[in-house]
Amino acid sequence: LKPAAVEADRVAADPTNIPGPIKRSSPKTHEIELETTEVVAEIEDGVQFRYMTYGDQVPGPMIRVRQGDTVILTLKASENNAMLHNVDFHAVYGTGGGANATFVTPGQSKTIKFKAMYPGAYIYHCAVPRLDYHISSGMYGMIFVEPKEGLPEVDHELYFGQNEVYTQQSIGAQGMHEFDHEAMRDEISTYVLLNGEKKAITADRRGPVKVKKGETARLFFVNGGPNLSSSFHPIGNVWTKAWREGAIASNPERYVQTTEIPPGSCGIFEMDFPVPSTIHLVDHALSRVASKGMMGDIVVEGK
Amino acid sequence: LKPAAVEADRVAADPTNIPGPIKRSSPKTHEIELETTEVVAEIEDGVQFRYMTYGDQVPGPMIRVRQGDTVILTLKASENNAMLHNVDFHAVYGTGGGANATFVTPGQSKTIKFKAMYPGAYIYHCAVPRLDYHISSGMYGMIFVEPKEGLPEVDHELYFGQNEVYTQQSIGAQGMHEFDHEAMRDEISTYVLLNGEKKAITADRRGPVKVKKGETARLFFVNGGPNLSSSFHPIGNVWTKAWREGAIASNPERYVQTTEIPPGSCGIFEMDFPVPSTIHLVDHALSRVASKGMMGDIVVEGK
Amino acid sequence: LKPAAVEADRVAADPTNIPGPIKRSSPKTHEIELETTEVVAEIEDGVQFRYMTYGDQVPGPMIRVRQGDTVILTLKASENNAMLHNVDFHAVYGTGGGANATFVTPGQSKTIKFKAMYPGAYIYHCAVPRLDYHISSGMYGMIFVEPKEGLPEVDHELYFGQNEVYTQQSIGAQGMHEFDHEAMRDEISTYVLLNGEKKAITADRRGPVKVKKGETARLFFVNGGPNLSSSFHPIGNVWTKAWREGAIASNPERYVQTTEIPPGSCGIFEMDFPVPSTIHLVDHALSRVASKGMMGDIVVEGK
Ligand SMILES: [Cu+2]
Ligand SMILES: [Cu+2]
Ligand SMILES: [Cu+2]
Ligand SMILES: [Cu+2]
Ligand SMILES: [Cu+2]
Ligand SMILES: [Cu+2]
Ligand code: NA
Ligand code: NA
Ligand code: NA
Ligand code: NA
Ligand code: NA
Ligand code: NA
Ligand SMILES: [Zn+2]
Ligand SMILES: [Zn+2]
Ligand SMILES: [Zn+2]
Ligand SMILES: [Zn+2]
Ligand SMILES: [Zn+2]
Ligand SMILES: [Zn+2]
Ligand SMILES: [Zn+2]
Ligand SMILES: [Zn+2]
Ligand SMILES: [Zn+2]
Repeated sequence: LKPAAVEADRVAADPTNIPGPIKRSSPKTHEIELETTEVVAEIEDGVQFRYMTYGDQVPGPMIRVRQGDTVILTLKASENNAMLHNVDFHAVYGTGGGANATFVTPGQSKTIKFKAMYPGAYIYHCAVPRLDYHISSGMYGMIFVEPKEGLPEVDHELYFGQNEVYTQQSIGAQGMHEFDHEAMRDEISTYVLLNGEKKAITADRRGPVKVKKGETARLFFVNGGPNLSSSFHPIGNVWTKAWREGAIASNPERYVQTTEIPPGSCGIFEMDFPVPSTIHLVDHALSRVASKGMMGDIVVEGK
Repeated sequence: LKPAAVEADRVAADPTNIPGPIKRSSPKTHEIELETTEVVAEIEDGVQFRYMTYGDQVPGPMIRVRQGDTVILTLKASENNAMLHNVDFHAVYGTGGGANATFVTPGQSKTIKFKAMYPGAYIYHCAVPRLDYHISSGMYGMIFVEPKEGLPEVDHELYFGQNEVYTQQSIGAQGMHEFDHEAMRDEISTYVLLNGEKKAITADRRGPVKVKKGETARLFFVNGGPNLSSSFHPIGNVWTKAWREGAIASNPERYVQTTEIPPGSCGIFEMDFPVPSTIHLVDHALSRVASKGMMGDIVVEGK
Repeated sequence: LKPAAVEADRVAADPTNIPGPIKRSSPKTHEIELETTEVVAEIEDGVQFRYMTYGDQVPGPMIRVRQGDTVILTLKASENNAMLHNVDFHAVYGTGGGANATFVTPGQSKTIKFKAMYPGAYIYHCAVPRLDYHISSGMYGMIFVEPKEGLPEVDHELYFGQNEVYTQQSIGAQGMHEFDHEAMRDEISTYVLLNGEKKAITADRRGPVKVKKGETARLFFVNGGPNLSSSFHPIGNVWTKAWREGAIASNPERYVQTTEIPPGSCGIFEMDFPVPSTIHLVDHALSRVASKGMMGDIVVEGK
């Protein structure tokens, strides 16, 4: 394979770089901008891929608002793009969740206004006609609509996203990987990734998340798919509380080992860290871990 | 491919043609007849397929009874059939859910009597030895056992069923498609369908469902499979309440974007329509939408 | 294919051979030994496969403790083994759920000590680097951490485990089947098994479970995977109560027909037997039943 010039050093979203908890008790209007980009970056060392992103990161920036807030969202398209893009928010009532009103050609911008009427963690994603290709290439993220009453305090909030990539090459083959539409139709993936790169959030690549013994965390998880359900599991730990589909208005389940999160959905998970350890976040369809790159680590420091 | 003579103009079940809510407060005995048929019809324009059905429709007729009611069910087999069929009701205690007692040869009828002892939305389906082939060809539907206390009033009740079809041809190839047993074994489908035809309930084919701004609806959804889970999602909307697996005696989940419904199961969903829009019902394994025909529309009229 | 010498007459776990309910109201320390073995046995008549097991059975021995109990677990490796093994308990806080501390070479033993801090049914499984291969070959079982308050009395408690096997041969081909790593990567299985053999717990092979009309049962179900979700369903019956993922501290769902249990997870199900019948336990992805050997039977005797 011919190697391709790398245009971005990193697409893996930093799990800790997200908006903080909302303290307000009254509604607010947010002006939020998302930029769609197309950029060659590496899935793993020596493996190039043409990503499509929101904000040059996978998953795209986490948006956080309060139930009842208004969002004025501007979708920009980089002038370097070759394709059309848009955005569908599962948190929004209305045709395409905003997709029809946000189609942007290269260099263009579109603005929509919506009110976040119901609480929960929802996916946003590109929804052009070949939306599966765009999401597989990285175009998805989360909007979290915080309940009016807020959430219990935790020590860390973390953000992870899973998607699978279909290429015409074999996993690890050095050089530029081309997208494989037939493999996608047959749902036979090449890579399954957490935060857009092979084992991105581990010591092997961008480094793990670090927490301390005795602390607690809340995970915001989004499964872009486009096709695979994730059997999301923390090796060496358990979800103390799990809100399936990110449906925070429902009662959580307690002490859940593995939660199946469908493509186009989310999960919210609370974790305790009673012992020093390295926790591997995985899709427990384990060939995706052993053969396809799906893993992210949380190191619990202490003794 | 050789085109085949079409024997039925439409197999797609009308989502609005279902029994209404039950007002009774005492038990009743129902005499219900289902006819099994084998019929060539079109999955999409120019693509013929030999369907197997209950009542010449996919999904088969929705049956609605009250918890504690008695059902005297007669399964008829059309004289034009070539194969054996029967029916397994997930709402029934007893060997095969009635399957063993309802094997019918062409032209034959069998009658069983059962009491609906527990509430919920349950699949019925053919359960002969190659049951995956029969269900993939269309032999499934829903029996809804309404709780004794009834259900809250809504403006519309709608009925949808998903199944995947395995053929030896490529999607869209004109002519008669032959069943592909090897593809079914490998779970690599050709079509994924809502109500038995490609985009049946959209403007492209039989027309969408129409509702009005401010109304509410309850969806009864059955996943025939035979093999694929459905990540069922309303694009541009949300399940206000969701009863996973159709288990109406459980507490519903609130504001759910996507619910994974396994093959051989059901879901009950309540929806609000606060804004005019077109809602696409999809399996959020999106290659099934972009490449395999899985979509149904609800148009919310108003301004 | 060359037939291989059979080293074990049976690997199918006896569903009734499990530890009984816990009556204690104070904590206890358990000394538990698990032995890892590699053994050729038959998946079905004439089809040999090199199993890897805990205790020469699939699923491995069910471990039962009370929340707050301490476990001193010794993992032994048979001297006849060729490979490394270990064990990851989803019931355990700590790196790898114990996997790192229990790597055993042939003939070696390792002991770990842990406290069962949260209640529920959890999988244990081998977690060496090619863990998908080891689990597919049989290395998984259940640890049930009983809640402090105990469980309601039932007449029978039963134990079942599902896993899928990937071989280079076709299902039923006589002789020794070799493992197919590429098929596993693509998640295209040869066999899908309940208790490690084709239709092991039916009259066709080891015999069904027998219960009596009017009795009740609790099923402990573990899905090893390594890759496939199970749409677990009792044909001719219903889960009166279902604890998804084995999360017993959550509220059960009521009258559930089919529950999707992801790989690396468990389910707890209560059943009533109001009528004499034969109940088939299946994965309702029905090609796995019709073509791949997935079925187990409960015969309800009486009249
Ligand atoms: Cu796009
Ligand atoms: Cu979506
Ligand atoms: Cu049939
Ligand atoms: Cu069934
Ligand atoms: Cu092992
Ligand atoms: Cu595990
Ligand atoms: Na939406
Ligand atoms: Na590839
Ligand atoms: Na049944
Ligand atoms: Na085909
Ligand atoms: Na663990
Ligand atoms: Na094979
Ligand atoms: Zn910290
Ligand atoms: Zn684990
Ligand atoms: Zn690690
Ligand atoms: Zn209306
Ligand atoms: Zn959507
Ligand atoms: Zn449309
Ligand atoms: Zn008994
Ligand atoms: Zn059934
Ligand atoms: Zn049987």
